[in-house]
Amino acid sequence: MLKIIQENKRIIVSFKNDIFLVHSEEEPAFYVGQGQETIESYRGNFKIDDYISERIPLRETSVSGENITFSHEKIKLELKLSIEQGRLVGQFKLNTMMNRFWFRLHATHDETIYGCGEQASYFNMRGQYVPLITTESGVGRDPHSLTTFYANKVDKAGGSFFTTYYPETSFVSSRKYYFHLDTYAYSIFDFRHQTFHEFMSWEIPKGFIITQKDHYVELLPDVTEYTGRPPLLPEYLLDGMILGVQGGLDQVLTYLQKAKDHNIKVSGLWCQDWAGYRYTTFGKRLYWNWKLNENLYPNLPNVIKGLNQDHVQFLSYICPFLLENESLFLEAERQGFLVLNQKNESYKEDFGEFYCGIVDLTNPQAYDWYKEVIKNNLIKLGIKGWMADFGEYLPIDCKLHNGVDALLMHNEWPVLWAKCNYEAVQETNNLGKVFYFMRAGGFGSQRYATSIWAGDQSVNWETHDGIASVIPAALSVGMIGNPYTHSDIGGYTSLHGNIRTKELFDRWCEMNVFTSYMRTHEGNRPKDNFQFYNDSDTMHHMARMTGVRVMLKPYIKHLFHEASLLGFPVQRPLFFHYENDNQAYHLQYQYLFGKDMLVKPVVSEHQTTMNVYLPDDQWIHLWTGVEYTGGKEVTVDCPMGYPPVFYLKKSSFAYVFQNITKTYA
Amino acid sequence: MLKIIQENKRIIVSFKNDIFLVHSEEEPAFYVGQGQETIESYRGNFKIDDYISERIPLRETSVSGENITFSHEKIKLELKLSIEQGRLVGQFKLNTMMNRFWFRLHATHDETIYGCGEQASYFNMRGQYVPLITTESGVGRDPHSLTTFYANKVDKAGGSFFTTYYPETSFVSSRKYYFHLDTYAYSIFDFRHQTFHEFMSWEIPKGFIITQKDHYVELLPDVTEYTGRPPLLPEYLLDGMILGVQGGLDQVLTYLQKAKDHNIKVSGLWCQDWAGYRYTTFGKRLYWNWKLNENLYPNLPNVIKGLNQDHVQFLSYICPFLLENESLFLEAERQGFLVLNQKNESYKEDFGEFYCGIVDLTNPQAYDWYKEVIKNNLIKLGIKGWMADFGEYLPIDCKLHNGVDALLMHNEWPVLWAKCNYEAVQETNNLGKVFYFMRAGGFGSQRYATSIWAGDQSVNWETHDGIASVIPAALSVGMIGNPYTHSDIGGYTSLHGNIRTKELFDRWCEMNVFTSYMRTHEGNRPKDNFQFYNDSDTMHHMARMTGVRVMLKPYIKHLFHEASLLGFPVQRPLFFHYENDNQAYHLQYQYLFGKDMLVKPVVSEHQTTMNVYLPDDQWIHLWTGVEYTGGKEVTVDCPMGYPPVFYLKKSSFAYVFQNITKTYA
Repeated sequence: MLKIIQENKRIIVSFKNDIFLVHSEEEPAFYVGQGQETIESYRGNFKIDDYISERIPLRETSVSGENITFSHEKIKLELKLSIEQGRLVGQFKLNTMMNRFWFRLHATHDETIYGCGEQASYFNMRGQYVPLITTESGVGRDPHSLTTFYANKVDKAGGSFFTTYYPETSFVSSRKYYFHLDTYAYSIFDFRHQTFHEFMSWEIPKGFIITQKDHYVELLPDVTEYTGRPPLLPEYLLDGMILGVQGGLDQVLTYLQKAKDHNIKVSGLWCQDWAGYRYTTFGKRLYWNWKLNENLYPNLPNVIKGLNQDHVQFLSYICPFLLENESLFLEAERQGFLVLNQKNESYKEDFGEFYCGIVDLTNPQAYDWYKEVIKNNLIKLGIKGWMADFGEYLPIDCKLHNGVDALLMHNEWPVLWAKCNYEAVQETNNLGKVFYFMRAGGFGSQRYATSIWAGDQSVNWETHDGIASVIPAALSVGMIGNPYTHSDIGGYTSLHGNIRTKELFDRWCEMNVFTSYMRTHEGNRPKDNFQFYNDSDTMHHMARMTGVRVMLKPYIKHLFHEASLLGFPVQRPLFFHYENDNQAYHLQYQYLFGKDMLVKPVVSEHQTTMNVYLPDDQWIHLWTGVEYTGGKEVTVDCPMGYPPVFYLKKSSFAYVFQNITKTYA
Repeated sequence: MLKIIQENKRIIVSFKNDIFLVHSEEEPAFYVGQGQETIESYRGNFKIDDYISERIPLRETSVSGENITFSHEKIKLELKLSIEQGRLVGQFKLNTMMNRFWFRLHATHDETIYGCGEQASYFNMRGQYVPLITTESGVGRDPHSLTTFYANKVDKAGGSFFTTYYPETSFVSSRKYYFHLDTYAYSIFDFRHQTFHEFMSWEIPKGFIITQKDHYVELLPDVTEYTGRPPLLPEYLLDGMILGVQGGLDQVLTYLQKAKDHNIKVSGLWCQDWAGYRYTTFGKRLYWNWKLNENLYPNLPNVIKGLNQDHVQFLSYICPFLLENESLFLEAERQGFLVLNQKNESYKEDFGEFYCGIVDLTNPQAYDWYKEVIKNNLIKLGIKGWMADFGEYLPIDCKLHNGVDALLMHNEWPVLWAKCNYEAVQETNNLGKVFYFMRAGGFGSQRYATSIWAGDQSVNWETHDGIASVIPAALSVGMIGNPYTHSDIGGYTSLHGNIRTKELFDRWCEMNVFTSYMRTHEGNRPKDNFQFYNDSDTMHHMARMTGVRVMLKPYIKHLFHEASLLGFPVQRPLFFHYENDNQAYHLQYQYLFGKDMLVKPVVSEHQTTMNVYLPDDQWIHLWTGVEYTGGKEVTVDCPMGYPPVFYLKKSSFAYVFQNITKTYA
């Protein structure tokens, strides 16, 4: 399985007959060095400058069994290789203090790369230079977009093609291997080179792991065996959509009634303002003291019971920040549970017109205390789901209880936050019944985040931060073991002139039928933007789309089981099942929804027809029943309510799809 | 003078009792390495990415006399130090092939830095990271400006704070030394560090030179002794302004008559379209075949003689590009005088809707041929000045006659172009009588460019590319030995919604009274923008300002002599004469016009009063005769025609200034 070949001062490491490491004096595989970073941080955005003063190639080698030493004079990097559970495991040990590390993995020229966390601009990472730090994902995310221009000017918040809430030092290659570098330190994965991929890290990683299989359907189970898998999503997510509404009990019940009157299938009410709200210049913000606001939602536990009888669940919101001088903040501060600043005072993070403390999740007592807050203030009320928001903000200049440099903890923080939520659900025996959705992530989210949501998109059609961007985002997290993800129907961010239209909302709604679940969001400025509850026509559209969704239940339930048992992402790239189809490796705006459905959402305004690439198989167009032979691009009409969707003629779920065709053609 | 001290593996090099090099094992002074650049070039704009694969500290040292060897194993860098003409000279020799070089000069924490070529955003470079490559300077030059946003989007032409036509690896420090690194290779001067300045270069420089004096008035003569100095500017530049007008002889003579009718003192007509013109989407462009267009300018030699009797000179335009398939292009191509592409065809540079060949100035025969073109097609007609445009465009992927990599020749090209013009003037015995103005530059422009012009500003008030930006531009080139510079009155670039206003033109006009000379420009879109000849009020303003200018002649003539004899810049920073005034080191929008005048041009719209810092001396306000005691900020009115200008009470030219006060108060 593992071979280490030495010839003429070259070292070649192969695993399962594929080459992973090629070292020579001219092209060393490892470098170490020194760097001094400068980081400007502002409200979850980080501008990083790295001044590298040394970068030393480790040219000399010595091999002893499965241990290889790469060295330069007195600097020695030991790489201990082993096979564990069929995977190639490498462990690093360096004998000197260095704070920069470079590792070149052998690459073939036609290899393509997927993963690196949640990537909203590009699915294939080959050719890209990918910084990995958890951060606000950015508004516009494109230096050539006016949205980004103004977001940068006003809030330093424009982002770029690679800013992400969820970065990860892991990927899957078209050579059907998975690679994970074992570090949470700031890293840059550089896929621009022909003969190697280069990974830079701000610490010496503990090691790496590689697993390779003959097929992706074998690879993902093994990857997720290693990363962990989330529990099944609750069944209620298959019985209708979740309405994201706010404004207090009377208000949200009115919206629910309106939805029902229009035959929309609703199985959840997500009221993020359950703890109260306020207005800032940014828009409507929540009141960050995570206790039920009895004025807004009086008698909630009983109301929830009533809703449940009607098959509607209640969902809410929490994040690891506590509004300064409010009750939870004071309780945490008194017990020393908050992250500190350099003067040993409670660190106050600026959220724009208000400040918050940060629960120190590295303090086991603080962690447990906050877990109890989740149990007591949310789960006990009968709440069956929530947005577990943020995780990407940990300041780099704060002091943590565990003594680790906040800069090194920064990327791990979202995983701690996920784990805290996970254990609250687990310890109350609610896995599979209660769930939450997170935007921030890292290695470990696979196990601890019950699902991912794609964060805050702009309410528009822009490529890098609008409706289209959630598709590569879903595909990339999926390939590294996060099977469940979805996005805000309608998008979120209405700033710098972007206002949500009815068309955008309707297209987003029909797209999300074919994701893990459907949930709407009012956005940051509810009053200025299109809302479904003000538009009868849209509610009819939602009735149609939730009707389709509920008819798909047997099929999607199957996908949920695949996800939680095998780690198969609910939304998959075409190459996952058509691995010999070269074109399938280069599509990022169409995907397989399970093995048997192919979806290409409408992500442009005023689109009336669409070209869809079908891989080599017999496909049936869901809305017309027309059969297409794959291996080529076909063109179909896509009026509202009829996004391009196909199913496999040979599918064992064909009866499900046929019924939809009959009912909704 | 030179001391090399060795103690505990530390090496300290001092010169004239000041420390310039501090080397230790922990903080080495030199690094060498390997890099691979990626450069995207588009119409004179260069986007550079440098992948550094090795950066090796040279920690080991050995000293032998005035030679120091810095080494790492087999890599040895020899530094040979010597004193030549009172200057510290270093010469480098490396025994291996490396394409990246880093050199750390010792810095003190309060040191400030000026120079690095022509820098339009910041005068003090301390704290900045300064890439040095000659390039289009950029439209807007500020990522937070909408102008730059659109320029990047449409033409990749937005630039940044450090894009410049004229970069140079030279600067003057507040420690009163001048430093020059002897290389034209792409370099980055990094002034962000507390204890050192770091210079990176894409080759091993031949060496460096340092000269230090007790006073700036002693330093600049020595610097320009080393760099060379330009000849005196022609006297006609003191007798009035140069009108930049176009459209053919009849048209420009009409403008001249209009100007005279309004009592504007005119001593030159600059007709850049002497060889013809055309329109593109960018605006009005010249016809790049440098021969008199007889249709537009019939009988020009005789017309020039007539103008001369009237004390008006004729000026024109040339650049090192030749319009494809036109007569000069074909003549050059036939003789093998054009730069080649990788297929050995004539390189065709894209200028937006037309293509040009490039005269290969590294070919001595081509160089001489083009010098003759300047002599025969310009000087012989009686032309007494021209814009010697461009120089910053040399493509990095072309093949040159001298066999040097175009990437390494790129920064030297403007100097070759300057030298070609210089010799044409010199060999026709016209130094001091005929002159030209250049935007592109490099080390050597001091000698070979008879004057600098600040290039193409946006026709607006934006800090980094509008009217204000020409002030730090003038101060920075001045400190490294270019005494004569000026800018287009009214600015040039009207793109992306920027349209020149009357107010901008008028302010620019009154500012340029206090520069080397006054010259207007119609801009790239003459018809859309404000032109003086359509506005009687502006012509009255011009009459006033040229009146002031001509009354200043005795004083400015003195400045010209200082410039050509001592290298004193006509426009100087306050610290040049007030070297113990700490505040003087941090002013970049006011300057001394010679020793005796202090100017703070109005560079904001609708400005009615202005705060001006006066150094410790007795100053007289030019327009009111009111006396001010310096060492503090004062406030004066600044209506149009009365920009804040002061003169020294004790000036030996006080009679000149008093006359102006009497006439123009």
